[in-house]
Amino acid sequence: MTSQRGEDEYRYKKVEQEISKHIIAGDLVPGDKLPSLRQMSTNLKVSISTVSHAYEELEKRGLIESRPRSGYFVRSEFRKIPTPLVNTAQKLEPHTVTKNKLIQTALETVGNKNLLPLGVVCPSSELLPTKHLSKIMSAVIRENPDLSINYESISGNMQLRRQIAFRSVDCGSNLTAEDLIITTGAMEALYISLRTLTRPGDLVLIQSPTYYCFLQLVESLGLRAIEIPSCPKNGINTKEFSAAVKKFDLKACILSPNFNNPDGGLTPDHAKKEIVELLAEKNIPLVEDDVYGDIYFGDTRPRTFKSFDRKGGVLLCSSFSKTIAPGYRVGWLAPGRYLEKAMEIKATTNVSCASPTQMAIARYLREAHFDRHLKKLRSAMKEQMNKMRTEIALSFPKGTKVTDPKGGSVLWVELPAGTDGIDLFFKAREEGIGIIPGSVFSTRDAFSNYIRLSSGALWSDKIQKGLKRLGELATK
Amino acid sequence: MTSQRGEDEYRYKKVEQEISKHIIAGDLVPGDKLPSLRQMSTNLKVSISTVSHAYEELEKRGLIESRPRSGYFVRSEFRKIPTPLVNTAQKLEPHTVTKNKLIQTALETVGNKNLLPLGVVCPSSELLPTKHLSKIMSAVIRENPDLSINYESISGNMQLRRQIAFRSVDCGSNLTAEDLIITTGAMEALYISLRTLTRPGDLVLIQSPTYYCFLQLVESLGLRAIEIPSCPKNGINTKEFSAAVKKFDLKACILSPNFNNPDGGLTPDHAKKEIVELLAEKNIPLVEDDVYGDIYFGDTRPRTFKSFDRKGGVLLCSSFSKTIAPGYRVGWLAPGRYLEKAMEIKATTNVSCASPTQMAIARYLREAHFDRHLKKLRSAMKEQMNKMRTEIALSFPKGTKVTDPKGGSVLWVELPAGTDGIDLFFKAREEGIGIIPGSVFSTRDAFSNYIRLSSGALWSDKIQKGLKRLGELATK
Repeated sequence: MTSQRGEDEYRYKKVEQEISKHIIAGDLVPGDKLPSLRQMSTNLKVSISTVSHAYEELEKRGLIESRPRSGYFVRSEFRKIPTPLVNTAQKLEPHTVTKNKLIQTALETVGNKNLLPLGVVCPSSELLPTKHLSKIMSAVIRENPDLSINYESISGNMQLRRQIAFRSVDCGSNLTAEDLIITTGAMEALYISLRTLTRPGDLVLIQSPTYYCFLQLVESLGLRAIEIPSCPKNGINTKEFSAAVKKFDLKACILSPNFNNPDGGLTPDHAKKEIVELLAEKNIPLVEDDVYGDIYFGDTRPRTFKSFDRKGGVLLCSSFSKTIAPGYRVGWLAPGRYLEKAMEIKATTNVSCASPTQMAIARYLREAHFDRHLKKLRSAMKEQMNKMRTEIALSFPKGTKVTDPKGGSVLWVELPAGTDGIDLFFKAREEGIGIIPGSVFSTRDAFSNYIRLSSGALWSDKIQKGLKRLGELATK
Repeated sequence: MTSQRGEDEYRYKKVEQEISKHIIAGDLVPGDKLPSLRQMSTNLKVSISTVSHAYEELEKRGLIESRPRSGYFVRSEFRKIPTPLVNTAQKLEPHTVTKNKLIQTALETVGNKNLLPLGVVCPSSELLPTKHLSKIMSAVIRENPDLSINYESISGNMQLRRQIAFRSVDCGSNLTAEDLIITTGAMEALYISLRTLTRPGDLVLIQSPTYYCFLQLVESLGLRAIEIPSCPKNGINTKEFSAAVKKFDLKACILSPNFNNPDGGLTPDHAKKEIVELLAEKNIPLVEDDVYGDIYFGDTRPRTFKSFDRKGGVLLCSSFSKTIAPGYRVGWLAPGRYLEKAMEIKATTNVSCASPTQMAIARYLREAHFDRHLKKLRSAMKEQMNKMRTEIALSFPKGTKVTDPKGGSVLWVELPAGTDGIDLFFKAREEGIGIIPGSVFSTRDAFSNYIRLSSGALWSDKIQKGLKRLGELATK
């Protein structure tokens, strides 16, 4: 019975998703009549009752409306929502980062479990292999009591490093276990990279917008940053990048080529190659953040900068925080030719990472559960993002734009000019909704009318209502 | 049967220990006759066979010898071993730390599990609550699948912070959960403290000798260090300390008042108070390392600097790495008035610590297992240290001095002048024995004829033979 019901639910959700997609894509515009129940049932090879159930759900969500004796129509209030454009007119100049206070406030929101988690980028635990990992953790601890209680080596658990190296073939990197240092999340990998490469006062290049924790780190290390615009579609523009590299005395570049947080930009592989070669020529190291690389919605995993690196100048940072277990804090760094110095920084920061969590993730990978899980996770993230985009299209003020990323787990929302993202952040927080204001993603006075929404939370009525309310708050 | 045998073993070990102690203390000198079996049996209220067993063991270990028809005598080769003296004649001047390479080599030895662990300061896993903690870890993961897979807050698990705060009464600190940040071991607490307080080029004060990881951190942060001599008996000399504080423009002091690693010095509580008050007056922050505070051999726990802190100028660093689980990497920082800045550094270094390990330690503390375990651990550490001192007295070259610490888990050995500790370190490593050369414990050219031996490993024939061999290598 339950399995039959599960099957039905799966079928009508499929229909619902199919139709939403066409509306979002603009194939169906406001006022268009939907196929009749019978016709749709034939088209999609599902029962009439399944289609009827899907239509009802779409009506509840405000996407379509039924007109007496005429059938179902796309609601006229519904608009196709454009994606934000990249602003390339900005002047390139170094900035000292001073947004730490605002970022701290935003970060506290992320940690606040009483808020609707539209600010948290990690998938909610329903989408993570929670029970499976618990069992594995119990097993590794029981089977290796001594190993789990004792120190790991500075570079980290060898089994884990072997598994990461083995998987690096997917993104073209071909790492060995000896190339890797296990870190407390990707954040520590990035921190070690910047400590390895820079001294206070140095100039680094970042994408704009970029993840606010990077800005916070840059500020806390006393660095100055030059920002080059990132495009929600094609990520880093090689022309602008190359101009900046030639103009400034850069000590490092920090780039997220695969689904940049927050704008979701995906830098094409040919551009990656060009960037790596240019930097190799100029002898400028490149710190690569690839935490979202495994959450791609297309057919193949995008490559990394590291996969084009011939001279060891790319420091690849990643983690399992967005795919397996945020709280296990297991990340890694492949620091290329900076391995020795990076090990020194790791040793003097905290000696080594916790043993049990490394052992559990190593076993999870070794038992080959990861790929099956990733497949499900990717499909869930894609679906949730679509639903969120639809709700935003329905509820947000006219003039709102939202990204349509090819992977990752965030949407970058441009509100109509004049809307204050920080104001909206505080208003939303008061109503129990956690979001991140756009201006924390740049050192400049930019993105003040943007917000970032995470699609990591399992879709629910609560999320939908939260988005609707957010739309109302943004409209006022 | 087994329990009877355990009881017997306990009894004869007690006798053996009692006699070793008197020999070490010099109450019994070479050539002295030991009480007869019968007399000793009456004195100690144990059976004659127990005393006989103990005497046999002492004979095997080379401490006493039996002479036909005369009884047992302290062996004439056996000498009382003096403790090293502090050298106060050195000139105070700032040093840029440049020992990172040598320290790195020493650290690799610590991580090498094929070596006899006389270099590793953590208690071996037989002395840790390995099985108990495994069970607790399985339980917390099973009972809290969501919490364990998700991020902790930046400051760390609230249950754990409450437990640490609750226990801080023991050392007079009276902390609250809100005063604390959970860190990846005490090393990260120290790192956060120094990042919070200093900038490259700044001058800090350290003890000499001091833990080489502190020197490595000081070097890696580009700081300069002024060293004040530490005494194996009374730790920090307040007169010398006060002179240095008045003479130099210090940005921070880093001190280990309780069983300083490597010399085991214990700064008396009245001196702690004086130091804290002087620094408060001068507005100089004090970073306190208290990782050995719980391993005291006397009746009461020594107090912390923090317990005398009225102005929030003491940043207390500690961990459970030396008492519960080195590999869990659970430490903490009570940064006093620097809390906000310290949180910022924590967030930009690695956001937060692993959740499962924090949860397991919190449960372990909450269930009140810790004090019972600590009592056993302290007694084991004390006994092992005594055995090591005895073996050193027997096997090391004439002129060797060794500390007699009141707690902690390291012995600081001064070899006869002219002996090269680094040379001995490499020779020992070749024979599979891990030790730490004395010169890594100072920025100056000092302690070249010293080595540090850890008493953390469970006493065994292997350890004894290793020490004997080390003595031979040092004699050559």
